[in-house]
Amino acid sequence: MSYNMLARRQQLMGPNVPTFYEDPVHIVRGQGVWLWDTEGRRYLDCYNNVPHVGHCHPKVVKAIAQQAAMLNTHTRYLHDGILDYIERLTVKFQHGLNQAIMVCTGSEANDIALRMAQAMTGKTGIIATDNTYHGNTTAVAQLSTRRPPIGGYPSHVRLVPAPDTVRPLGGSVQAQPQVFADNIAAAIAELEQAGHGFSGFMLCPTFANEGFPALLPGFLNPAVKVIRDAGGLILCDEVQPGFGRIGAAWWGHEWLGFSPDVVTVGKPMANGHPVAAVISRPDIMGAFRDAFGYFNTFGGNPVSCAAAMATLQVIEDEGLVENACDVGAYALDRLQAIQHPLKAEARGLGLFFGIEFVVDDGTPATDFTARVVEAMRHRGILLNRIGRHMNTLKMRPPMPFSRDNADMAINALEDVLKETRI
Amino acid sequence: MSYNMLARRQQLMGPNVPTFYEDPVHIVRGQGVWLWDTEGRRYLDCYNNVPHVGHCHPKVVKAIAQQAAMLNTHTRYLHDGILDYIERLTVKFQHGLNQAIMVCTGSEANDIALRMAQAMTGKTGIIATDNTYHGNTTAVAQLSTRRPPIGGYPSHVRLVPAPDTVRPLGGSVQAQPQVFADNIAAAIAELEQAGHGFSGFMLCPTFANEGFPALLPGFLNPAVKVIRDAGGLILCDEVQPGFGRIGAAWWGHEWLGFSPDVVTVGKPMANGHPVAAVISRPDIMGAFRDAFGYFNTFGGNPVSCAAAMATLQVIEDEGLVENACDVGAYALDRLQAIQHPLKAEARGLGLFFGIEFVVDDGTPATDFTARVVEAMRHRGILLNRIGRHMNTLKMRPPMPFSRDNADMAINALEDVLKETRI
Repeated sequence: MSYNMLARRQQLMGPNVPTFYEDPVHIVRGQGVWLWDTEGRRYLDCYNNVPHVGHCHPKVVKAIAQQAAMLNTHTRYLHDGILDYIERLTVKFQHGLNQAIMVCTGSEANDIALRMAQAMTGKTGIIATDNTYHGNTTAVAQLSTRRPPIGGYPSHVRLVPAPDTVRPLGGSVQAQPQVFADNIAAAIAELEQAGHGFSGFMLCPTFANEGFPALLPGFLNPAVKVIRDAGGLILCDEVQPGFGRIGAAWWGHEWLGFSPDVVTVGKPMANGHPVAAVISRPDIMGAFRDAFGYFNTFGGNPVSCAAAMATLQVIEDEGLVENACDVGAYALDRLQAIQHPLKAEARGLGLFFGIEFVVDDGTPATDFTARVVEAMRHRGILLNRIGRHMNTLKMRPPMPFSRDNADMAINALEDVLKETRI
Repeated sequence: MSYNMLARRQQLMGPNVPTFYEDPVHIVRGQGVWLWDTEGRRYLDCYNNVPHVGHCHPKVVKAIAQQAAMLNTHTRYLHDGILDYIERLTVKFQHGLNQAIMVCTGSEANDIALRMAQAMTGKTGIIATDNTYHGNTTAVAQLSTRRPPIGGYPSHVRLVPAPDTVRPLGGSVQAQPQVFADNIAAAIAELEQAGHGFSGFMLCPTFANEGFPALLPGFLNPAVKVIRDAGGLILCDEVQPGFGRIGAAWWGHEWLGFSPDVVTVGKPMANGHPVAAVISRPDIMGAFRDAFGYFNTFGGNPVSCAAAMATLQVIEDEGLVENACDVGAYALDRLQAIQHPLKAEARGLGLFFGIEFVVDDGTPATDFTARVVEAMRHRGILLNRIGRHMNTLKMRPPMPFSRDNADMAINALEDVLKETRI
């Protein structure tokens, strides 16, 4: 069955379409933190952040169905849905971030954020961390490409080494914040020298794709000073940490303790319905709309807004941020207590966990980590890997994840770690 | 009410958010070809192509609601929905276009199409028509920007004059196809000279945003020869003409009679749910995936596929392409029979119509056309304007538009034309 599906995918979707797992999972049903495959086998979802309030949450499904039956137009007509939602969303931000553009994907949101920095500064140079991912449009993919693009690497992009807690920049966790900032300062100088100038710095405040290092609040302070002194904007990609994922706060920047100029949100925003947004200040919004104009046909349509509003309501009604805090701390304690010769670190923020494996000399245990992921999948627990070396287990379940769910996942992980060949 | 809504929009969405009409319409409900505002007033929708099979079509709403309640994941798991849909969609294409990537917006689709041309040719130069619009990402917006971008106009983009039937290129409708091709040849030479090389030509096969000129099949033949001889790809943006809008065929390129290398579809594809796609040949798909890699979190999710499949099914079940042909011809006859001193041309393809107005010396009657649009809106008929000079009325109703609907709209138009100050 799987083999035929893969052949059919290749025939209809082309080569190299990514799937999870050596033996990909054929899912047909989801509810809460559970998924079922074609043979009725149940999986505990410890990976998916898009179904933020749980797969197929009935209140979100109902909101989508009701609005889809009532009206689905665009923002060139007036509609209360988008205004009610933006009002509700922006009260969750400080720093004067009180306006929003609604779009369909995090990629579209980040593509706008880059242009906001250009519009405010009149410059094009942009800095991001290496091994990051901010999306798939041409402009945004330039920040994360691993392959030389046609026409060569773009000269207006500079990448600085991402922070790491197992192999910290500058050799120590204490030195790392300043070294990170110094690298940004050097990149700014290069961009100025090359004639691009410096428009801004884009980051995920939890450096999730970079390996989700165990940073402490305040880490970014030296970098913020460098960026501010150079007149650049801070573009904060909250697609992964946002909407309470990290438990301690609604947004990653709030927890890390800095003031972004532009925030982007996406994936979990409407529990899987294609919705994303850019939140910013009126001065930046005005500069962007003056310089570029912008209209998005599907962005902010009444159905998308209803889906996003219902998702936000469920997060609050069901206390899911508090749950992320509670279950997150409980699970992290258990993960940190795991003893294994290759385990370098277990880190977590709310319901986002990374468990990193290295061999004796500090070499990333990439293959071992891959084997753990596959073994977990065969035990009915879905998780995956992140980081530069893909040697960090990534657990990031839907937000209604309970202590029982955590026990089930971690018990299985303990067994798998014992059984997996080193 | 409207005033407060506009102030609230400005406060929450920022300045310069585009709306239709001097007195924007506040829509709360839609069904078929009808829309209703907050005061219960009914409008005949003669403009919106996104609700392709009619606003809130019950079969599409049901498909969305059922799938949203069952499962909504992404393409890293296996699912039949995307395979069944791509299979069903691609049989509607010839020229070896039998694979697809599903994304969320036409902008994302065109952003990929540009990179497919780069991947196949190893070059970056791209040509489009002036006054076109292919989307809002940074890369795609470079083809349609009216404002100097930060950092200057990109040197790898060349724009050629779009065809026109009231003011044809080269002075005559007969000369126009070759003049259009000659301009492309000159642009290719410029791109080669500048060191970018020529990757491809992107067009809407009905030149909808350029004013929807009354071209004849075969128009593009000389241009196709020039593009092929130079080794470039033809990127066909079917976001507006696609899915039977033009009545005579499912796709604009099929009607105009040329063989594209890449086709993009969007807006009407899932009746308003954010879905779009890129359809191409296996060699191009392979080159793109080798050069760039690509994953879109929301693209091709089970709910999006269910919405797209239901929309396609309704188009067929209700004979909407045939209806576009029949009602389109009927309405075009009536539009062409209208006598008015400023009327230069009434043109149409299926359920897409342009009625162009000029004053005696050929000057575009832009203000007059704007007054007609506003007067129609106040009579409860929603339409708008297109073209370089915005002097062409644009009618492009949902596809279930009937002869009675056409009579209602055109009767109102006749009255408005008599009453509107020249």
